[in-house]
Amino acid sequence: MAAAARFGSNLDLRELRHEIEEFNTAYAEVLDRGEVLEWPSFFTEDAFYRIRARENADADLPAGLVYCEGLAMIKDRAFAIAHTAMFEPRYLMHMISNVCVTDVDAEGVISARAKYLVLETRGDEGTRVHQAGRYQDRFVREQGRLLLKSRDCVYDSLIVDNALVLPV
Amino acid sequence: MAAAARFGSNLDLRELRHEIEEFNTAYAEVLDRGEVLEWPSFFTEDAFYRIRARENADADLPAGLVYCEGLAMIKDRAFAIAHTAMFEPRYLMHMISNVCVTDVDAEGVISARAKYLVLETRGDEGTRVHQAGRYQDRFVREQGRLLLKSRDCVYDSLIVDNALVLPV
Amino acid sequence: MAAAARFGSNLDLRELRHEIEEFNTAYAEVLDRGEVLEWPSFFTEDAFYRIRARENADADLPAGLVYCEGLAMIKDRAFAIAHTAMFEPRYLMHMISNVCVTDVDAEGVISARAKYLVLETRGDEGTRVHQAGRYQDRFVREQGRLLLKSRDCVYDSLIVDNALVLPV
Repeated sequence: MAAAARFGSNLDLRELRHEIEEFNTAYAEVLDRGEVLEWPSFFTEDAFYRIRARENADADLPAGLVYCEGLAMIKDRAFAIAHTAMFEPRYLMHMISNVCVTDVDAEGVISARAKYLVLETRGDEGTRVHQAGRYQDRFVREQGRLLLKSRDCVYDSLIVDNALVLPV
Repeated sequence: MAAAARFGSNLDLRELRHEIEEFNTAYAEVLDRGEVLEWPSFFTEDAFYRIRARENADADLPAGLVYCEGLAMIKDRAFAIAHTAMFEPRYLMHMISNVCVTDVDAEGVISARAKYLVLETRGDEGTRVHQAGRYQDRFVREQGRLLLKSRDCVYDSLIVDNALVLPV
Repeated sequence: MAAAARFGSNLDLRELRHEIEEFNTAYAEVLDRGEVLEWPSFFTEDAFYRIRARENADADLPAGLVYCEGLAMIKDRAFAIAHTAMFEPRYLMHMISNVCVTDVDAEGVISARAKYLVLETRGDEGTRVHQAGRYQDRFVREQGRLLLKSRDCVYDSLIVDNALVLPV
């Protein structure tokens, strides 16, 4: 594996995977608690964030349901959501698993993938699957801490659900 | 992170996380197999166990759907379930993920969180999400083995489902 | 634990668990992408593969919905699926978690378990749980790489869904 050669060894990649798992768990907890104003803190200043349907991603179409270039746009998105009235109470739970580190380049940018599952609970209908998808990520380390340089979310869906404007 | 400072390093916390993952996998397997009488063996003598709806937890209401103080109550609960007639066949599967170790105190009590997903399969309707929630745990080590000093289960739900009397 | 005694230590078993997690993540990604012709590459020449309902497994009935003895049968299955017309577009996502290494025998055959969740997305109805089950695996190492000597899939279900002919 090219990533292993560049980075040192499979064991180093494994440690990196474990570190990303911890990052993703913290990320998921912030979204679960609805602390959307904390969500931008996981990104770099120049970060890219997108949520895109898989059929668009497979066809290499860049358009996404959410598309943010730079932390300012990510913060705008968070602010807008935090100030949007929700019409009915609901809870979301994010499970993130199957992290795979695929590359570490010469500048130390880490490429990784993971899967996410979002469960939604509304008052009158119990818990159901809201969204299933994949993260295609690039991480950098700033002051010892991992940050997302880009998170490209690709969800399995052929229909558009308006709740998708929330970050995942 | 305070936990890291007290415990030694992030790598020690990571090993602890991996150990808790193994604990949770064994715990889930016992519940999946329906071996409810084995379930109390994961707890200490003075253990606390509770299942509570998230709206109660968020409002800091202590009342839970299940509330056990001490191993005797936990065993009573297990015994009652083992001797309760089930009206229709069904299977449950527990997936536990996103473990996060948050603290290790001076007495060695480990605080951790995790998420759980319970899938339910009934004969006539396939598999569906039964419950999604979080564990808020405190572990201690007895004779080299981790045991739960408390497991506080908080599930995303606004309705009460009577099947919830089963441990999760 | 007998496996720990034979294999060296719990830490060695943990490294093995992490390696199997990486194997399972790669396996799941191949199935998610629909690259079914790549699926046989995870198995040994003499591999066994089966998908069986839990009620059959619990009753020790060997019959499975899918039953392959040897890589040739596994490849036949993959070829047949790759050339079967699908009547409607759909996506599958596989999440694999809670890996548990249970044994390493004198020949180095590794016994392990894991849980899998398959989410299905069809155009008109969003994402839902398709199948929840367990892998009962035996791995061997060939040229430094883990391969499945057997994967016995046991799913929670009491009904037969024809989409189950796909590997999981």
